[in-house]
Amino acid sequence: MSQINETHDIQLKSWVASANATGTDFPIQNLPFAVFRRKNSNEEFRGGVAIGDQVLDLGAVVDANLLSGDAAEAAEAANAPALNEFMGMGQQYWSALRLALSRALREGSELQSSLEGALVAQDDVEYALPCHIGDYTDFYTSIYHATAVGSLFRPDNPLLPNYKWVPIGYHGRSSSIGVSGQAFPRPKGQTKAPDADTPSFGPCKRLDYELELGIYLGKGNELGDSIAIKDAEDHVFGFCLFNDWSARDLQAWEYQPLGPFLAKNFASTVSPWVVTTEALAPYRTNWHRDENDPQPLEYLESTQNRESGAIDIRMDVLLETEKMRSEGAKASKLSESSFKHSYWTVAQMVTHHTVNGCNFLPGDMLGSGTQSGPEHEEAGSLLELSRGGKETITLENGEERKFLEDGDKVIMRGWCEADGYNRIGFGSVEGTILPAK
Amino acid sequence: MSQINETHDIQLKSWVASANATGTDFPIQNLPFAVFRRKNSNEEFRGGVAIGDQVLDLGAVVDANLLSGDAAEAAEAANAPALNEFMGMGQQYWSALRLALSRALREGSELQSSLEGALVAQDDVEYALPCHIGDYTDFYTSIYHATAVGSLFRPDNPLLPNYKWVPIGYHGRSSSIGVSGQAFPRPKGQTKAPDADTPSFGPCKRLDYELELGIYLGKGNELGDSIAIKDAEDHVFGFCLFNDWSARDLQAWEYQPLGPFLAKNFASTVSPWVVTTEALAPYRTNWHRDENDPQPLEYLESTQNRESGAIDIRMDVLLETEKMRSEGAKASKLSESSFKHSYWTVAQMVTHHTVNGCNFLPGDMLGSGTQSGPEHEEAGSLLELSRGGKETITLENGEERKFLEDGDKVIMRGWCEADGYNRIGFGSVEGTILPAK
Repeated sequence: MSQINETHDIQLKSWVASANATGTDFPIQNLPFAVFRRKNSNEEFRGGVAIGDQVLDLGAVVDANLLSGDAAEAAEAANAPALNEFMGMGQQYWSALRLALSRALREGSELQSSLEGALVAQDDVEYALPCHIGDYTDFYTSIYHATAVGSLFRPDNPLLPNYKWVPIGYHGRSSSIGVSGQAFPRPKGQTKAPDADTPSFGPCKRLDYELELGIYLGKGNELGDSIAIKDAEDHVFGFCLFNDWSARDLQAWEYQPLGPFLAKNFASTVSPWVVTTEALAPYRTNWHRDENDPQPLEYLESTQNRESGAIDIRMDVLLETEKMRSEGAKASKLSESSFKHSYWTVAQMVTHHTVNGCNFLPGDMLGSGTQSGPEHEEAGSLLELSRGGKETITLENGEERKFLEDGDKVIMRGWCEADGYNRIGFGSVEGTILPAK
Repeated sequence: MSQINETHDIQLKSWVASANATGTDFPIQNLPFAVFRRKNSNEEFRGGVAIGDQVLDLGAVVDANLLSGDAAEAAEAANAPALNEFMGMGQQYWSALRLALSRALREGSELQSSLEGALVAQDDVEYALPCHIGDYTDFYTSIYHATAVGSLFRPDNPLLPNYKWVPIGYHGRSSSIGVSGQAFPRPKGQTKAPDADTPSFGPCKRLDYELELGIYLGKGNELGDSIAIKDAEDHVFGFCLFNDWSARDLQAWEYQPLGPFLAKNFASTVSPWVVTTEALAPYRTNWHRDENDPQPLEYLESTQNRESGAIDIRMDVLLETEKMRSEGAKASKLSESSFKHSYWTVAQMVTHHTVNGCNFLPGDMLGSGTQSGPEHEEAGSLLELSRGGKETITLENGEERKFLEDGDKVIMRGWCEADGYNRIGFGSVEGTILPAK
């Protein structure tokens, strides 16, 4: 598990001036990874690292031959249109590259003049998915979300008996995961009104977002092997923001008995930047289980997980309507929450997922599930905020919503703060609803 | 949609004598694809075509430069460790290669002497997965299975109201799909006995198989586009046998509300050979919906689907215990069924899956769901045959089973027969249970 080290030191400044600006998502203590190229170019996509408002081009870093040892090997692997190989190298290589880049980007680094040519303004680039996502599993780790949604789908039985024992998860669709900027038509499908005799077919009427984190697996495991909880975080490369778009009316009709399917697989959107597990070390917090709740079974229990298994990743979600765009108004904030409320930790998700021998491959993704907080205002979906479409949400410009309308852009942001450490951010994930085809 | 053509002619004989033997799975009218190499070699895996007891090595065919036009392009694409590119080329190329190989392998072909060196005995090869399976979706198309299983999991509510309207499906795990011969440890996990207060952890006690077909997608679709039912089969490359191993005790405890997860993702096994949709043209049959049942919504309805949407693919399942192996006894047959009983057709699965804009990539796989027939004896799982573990199944050598034991090998076979046409077969899919780790 990642420890705090010199790369987290709040005193560090970068020779990239924008990285030292108050409020930047990308100070030198962050150093997240993405796959990018110059906008409107035919360049190959390759790995890059965010520093202030710039991208450090790992292709240019490799070409200039500025690194050595494990860091050089790691940079070469990350100089590719997908980061899977780099992700599969493991903590030793991830840390070596992070440390080398931290030193190279610091004020006073001898490499400054060599690296200045390797910077590309973030405004001038476009992103691809950071890796090939072989399998994607969505968890359901917010008990507040599970309870709120359960009370809408099953009023008599909101939280099922397994919830407090099993980190509930299900497999999602990889092919329709896109990077921030994704725009997709409103899905069509079957729905059935509660008072209707038969279902009908048409565009979704209850289109929603879900505020989640995506968790990228690094080093995998062999089929038949399990990852013990003490080793679990060594397999976690990093985190992104994740919008798990959901068609609630399709979901209500289709989801029994085998779970959500067409209600989810039409699109899912990730932020371009992957914040490494190592970068998140200062924002860890203890994880506890209320004494009135069942304590985890032994395979999901460790001292380390109790002490620092949770992470205070704050997240918010904003809505930008067509009207706001045409009037130049800023997006309207819908809610804010934190991953620290999660009922299960990342380590518990990893261990549970593999306890039966299921194998991970580098680049596989876990969704955290919608990260609703304990208060109604902290809900991570419109389904919850509108109480199942029963209440109207008034936006900052006076527009109203119960669910998403065509032209709506949903924006999610994430960041971490802790005493004695810098604020670091995730950038954003944005996606836009087009009219049904 | 594939039509009957000269490649299906029952009169055709091959110069490969074993392809003309009565009862062979691989007469010249079949020509299924696999990815193979010589056993215990360091050869690259590449595409091959079954003919009698031989594999026609597409690498050797390409090297010998014996084909031309679309067939040559298709063979080049199939000369690869994964058939995804070939699968993505579409019907025109698949058909061109099938026709060229059918002519080249016929008695009297001028190419016989050139091709004889391109044959490798099936006994001398090992197989890989035929393609990279990006996403795998499992359907639930046997109403007999859904009713039988539903009555065990939900005695009061076996068949849910959506079943007769929605082709129910859910996403499965791709990483743990292996090719025939897969052996894996008995999964461990959480279970809860009905009379227990709390769950416990340990090896699965109700390990089961599921007798399914796997359906490989060929040409994909763009995110946001749907595949109309009239075009659906043009996207289906072919079919394999598929064993969707299931841990019933894990499943019962974990599956609500988001569906099966660890109960299924520890292993799934496919047969090496992919029988093309074109090869199956003679075995099609009409699809009908009982007049007392709801008729499909319009997007799932077509004249072609009514006339020939179903396929009479017969399948059986056999169990070979350690005792049978040590005594040289043959495997004991458990049941036999046919895909013609499916409540939904392949075209309906494809169209439903994409009606919301979900995108397919070449090589994606659909599971048919367990193909239980209308009679109890035709059930495709032990859960059904043992009526939820309440009844003992006696094997041909006198051994008894309710669920699978360590050392058990499950063997599934598939074949098609129709008046006026050859019998063609799928070969087999085999998998073995190892003790829990």
